[in-house]
Amino acid sequence: MRTDLCDRLGIAHPVVGFSPSEHVVAAISRAGGLGVLGCVRFNDPDELDAVLSWLDEATGGRPYGVDVVMPSHAPADGAPADLDALIPAGHRDFVERTLLRLGVPPALDGESRAGVLGWLHSVARSHVEVALTHPIRLIANALGPPPPDVTDRAHAHGVPVAALAGRADHARSHVSGGVDLVVAQGYEAGGHTGEIGSMVLIPEIVDAVGARVPVLAAGGIGSGRQIAAALALGARGVWLGSIWLGTEEYRSAPALREALLRAGSGDTVRSRIYTGKPARLLRNRWTDAWSEPGAPAPLPMPLQNLLVAQAHTRLMESGDPSVVPMPVGQIVGRMNEVRPVADVLADLVAEADDTLGRLGALTRPGADGSR
Amino acid sequence: MRTDLCDRLGIAHPVVGFSPSEHVVAAISRAGGLGVLGCVRFNDPDELDAVLSWLDEATGGRPYGVDVVMPSHAPADGAPADLDALIPAGHRDFVERTLLRLGVPPALDGESRAGVLGWLHSVARSHVEVALTHPIRLIANALGPPPPDVTDRAHAHGVPVAALAGRADHARSHVSGGVDLVVAQGYEAGGHTGEIGSMVLIPEIVDAVGARVPVLAAGGIGSGRQIAAALALGARGVWLGSIWLGTEEYRSAPALREALLRAGSGDTVRSRIYTGKPARLLRNRWTDAWSEPGAPAPLPMPLQNLLVAQAHTRLMESGDPSVVPMPVGQIVGRMNEVRPVADVLADLVAEADDTLGRLGALTRPGADGSR
Repeated sequence: MRTDLCDRLGIAHPVVGFSPSEHVVAAISRAGGLGVLGCVRFNDPDELDAVLSWLDEATGGRPYGVDVVMPSHAPADGAPADLDALIPAGHRDFVERTLLRLGVPPALDGESRAGVLGWLHSVARSHVEVALTHPIRLIANALGPPPPDVTDRAHAHGVPVAALAGRADHARSHVSGGVDLVVAQGYEAGGHTGEIGSMVLIPEIVDAVGARVPVLAAGGIGSGRQIAAALALGARGVWLGSIWLGTEEYRSAPALREALLRAGSGDTVRSRIYTGKPARLLRNRWTDAWSEPGAPAPLPMPLQNLLVAQAHTRLMESGDPSVVPMPVGQIVGRMNEVRPVADVLADLVAEADDTLGRLGALTRPGADGSR
Repeated sequence: MRTDLCDRLGIAHPVVGFSPSEHVVAAISRAGGLGVLGCVRFNDPDELDAVLSWLDEATGGRPYGVDVVMPSHAPADGAPADLDALIPAGHRDFVERTLLRLGVPPALDGESRAGVLGWLHSVARSHVEVALTHPIRLIANALGPPPPDVTDRAHAHGVPVAALAGRADHARSHVSGGVDLVVAQGYEAGGHTGEIGSMVLIPEIVDAVGARVPVLAAGGIGSGRQIAAALALGARGVWLGSIWLGTEEYRSAPALREALLRAGSGDTVRSRIYTGKPARLLRNRWTDAWSEPGAPAPLPMPLQNLLVAQAHTRLMESGDPSVVPMPVGQIVGRMNEVRPVADVLADLVAEADDTLGRLGALTRPGADGSR
C-alpha cells in the first residue's frame, strides 16, 4: 500500500499516528509511519524542547511531526489566576461533590494542578517556535488552521502544515488559509470531533479541497480494512489516534488500560466536559454524572479544562477503571489486547494490502466478495 | 462489481434500495439492484396488496423485497382510539402552538389522520401475510429481528429474512433468531439509527456474525466510492435509502424536493420526535422547535407518531421547504440534482468499479493514490 503521501512525507506507509506519548511517536516513526506528538500537555516550552531532543534520537532520523492546538476562535488568553476567577463557584462545588460521591480520594501530592494551557495562543505559539528548532516534518493543528503568520513560519522552514476539519466548508477555508494537508475527522473520532460520520465526511472533504490537497482520513480507523475503506473514499492516507492507547509504548496506568480493554464501541460519549468543546470520551461514571439532572452546563474553552484539571488527576490516581477520564474514539471496541506499536502497524499494513487485493478482484465477473 | 450476494438474491449489482415509493422500487429492480418497498405506511393491507400486484408487473419479473417494522420490544398494541387517549393534552397543545408559530395552515381536507400504525405487530403481521402471496425475494425488518414464527413463515416460502442492526450484539442475536442477512446501519443513516458510525459498525458486525451471514452496509452511502468502502469493510453489498429521495421516480412535493436539494450533510438531526425512537431527520424549523426550552419530551413509540401525524400532513401541505418533515441521512448533502433511478444506479456501479480498480493498483510499489 503506497500513495503519494509516502513520498511527500518520506514514509513507507501512508499512516500518520498521533499520540501525546513520545514513546508511541518514536515507535510509529521507526516502524515506517509518521509519528505526531501532541503538544497540548506541555505548559513549559523547555519541557517540550527536551522531549523533542529525545525524539530526534529515538526516531533514528525517521520523520516525525508535532500537533498543536490553536482554536480558530481564540479563547480569552491570560494568566491562570485571571482565568480561575472566571470559574463559577457552583461549578467547583459540583466537581467536588461528584468526586466525593464517586469515592475518588484527594490528590496524592495535595498540590493544585495548572490544567491544560496548551490551547492558549501564547502557549501554542511557543510550541511552534520550539518545534521549528527540531527537524520536524509536519505541524498539525487540531482545531482548524493556524494563524497565517504561523503557517508562513512553518513554510519558511520547509515544514508542511496540516489542519483537522469536521466539515467541508472548514476544510475549504483551511486550504485558502495556506494549509497543505487536511485531516478529515469524522464523528467516530476520539477527542474534539464534529457530527458528520467518516463515511460521509471523508469524500465530501476530498471533493471540497480538490486533488492537489491530500486528505488524511481520521475517525473510527484502527484496522487495515478501515484504512482500505478510507483510501476508497479518496483519502491519501490515514490519521490514527485512539488505537495507540492500547499499545505497550503508551505506558498507561493499569486502571486506564483495564477500562480501554473492556470498553465496547458503544462505550464513548461526545461531550463538552473535557475541554469546553465537543470531544469524544470514554463513557463512565464521571461522564454520566455530567448528564444527570442538576449537573451544570460545561464552561467554554479554556475554563472547563481548568475547572476539571485537578479532578482529572484525582480520577486517574484513584485506580478505579469506572471513572478514568480519557478522550477516545469508537474504535476503542477493537482494543482487546496490549501490543507493541510495531506489531499494530505491521498488522494494519498487512490487512490493508490484503483488502486492496481482495477489492481489485471484485471487478472480475463472478468474483466472490466473502472474506 | 459482483459479490456472492448477487447470486443469492438474483441481482446484477449488490445494491439493495429501500424506498416507500413503489415507483422507485420498481426502477431499482429493473436497473439490476434489489428494490425493497417500505410497508409501514400501509394501514390497510388491501392497499399494500394492490401496490404489490402493480410491482409484480412493473418490475418485469425482476426480484424485489418488502420492509416491515416490527419493534423487538413491542409497543402497546390496540385500536387507534385507545392509543389516542394515552397522549397528554400538553403535547397536543405544544404541537398546535408550534404549527401556528411556524405559519403552517390547517389541513386541506380538514379530516384527522390515523397516523402510522405499521409498527404495531398486528399491522406488520398483516403486511407479511400479504407480501408472502407475492413473489417477493426478501423480507427485511427495520427494528431488529421479526418474531420467530414470522421468520419461520418466510423461510417456509423460501424467502430470506434481513434485519437492521445498529450494534454488534443486536446483530448476533438477530442471527441466532434465524435472520439470514444483517443490515449494519450506522449513525449517518436516515430514519431509525444508532450512535455508532458506519466506519466502526460495519466491520464490527461483519466480524460478529461471521462469514456465513452476509452483511449489507447502510448509513451514509450514496456514491460508488462509498460502496467500495463498504466492501472494504467486509460488507457483501449495500443498503441505500436516502439517496432515492432525490430521484425523478420519488415524485416528491416541490417543497420537499427543494429542501432536500438545498440541505448539506450537516443539516440533519437525530431525534425521537418522528416516531418515539431515535431517527435521523432533515433539520429545519419544525425539528428545531422540539429542542427549544419548554418543548416537551417526545412520547414513546407508537404514541409520538400518532401525536404528530396530522402535523406532518400540514407541514408537508404547507409548501414551505423550511418545515417539511422527512427522515433522511447525512448523505443528503450529495443530493444536488433530480435524476432517474437508472442513472443514479448506473453511476454508483461505474464509480464503484473505478474505485475497486484504483484500489487494486495501490498494492503495486510506487502507485499513486490520487484520484
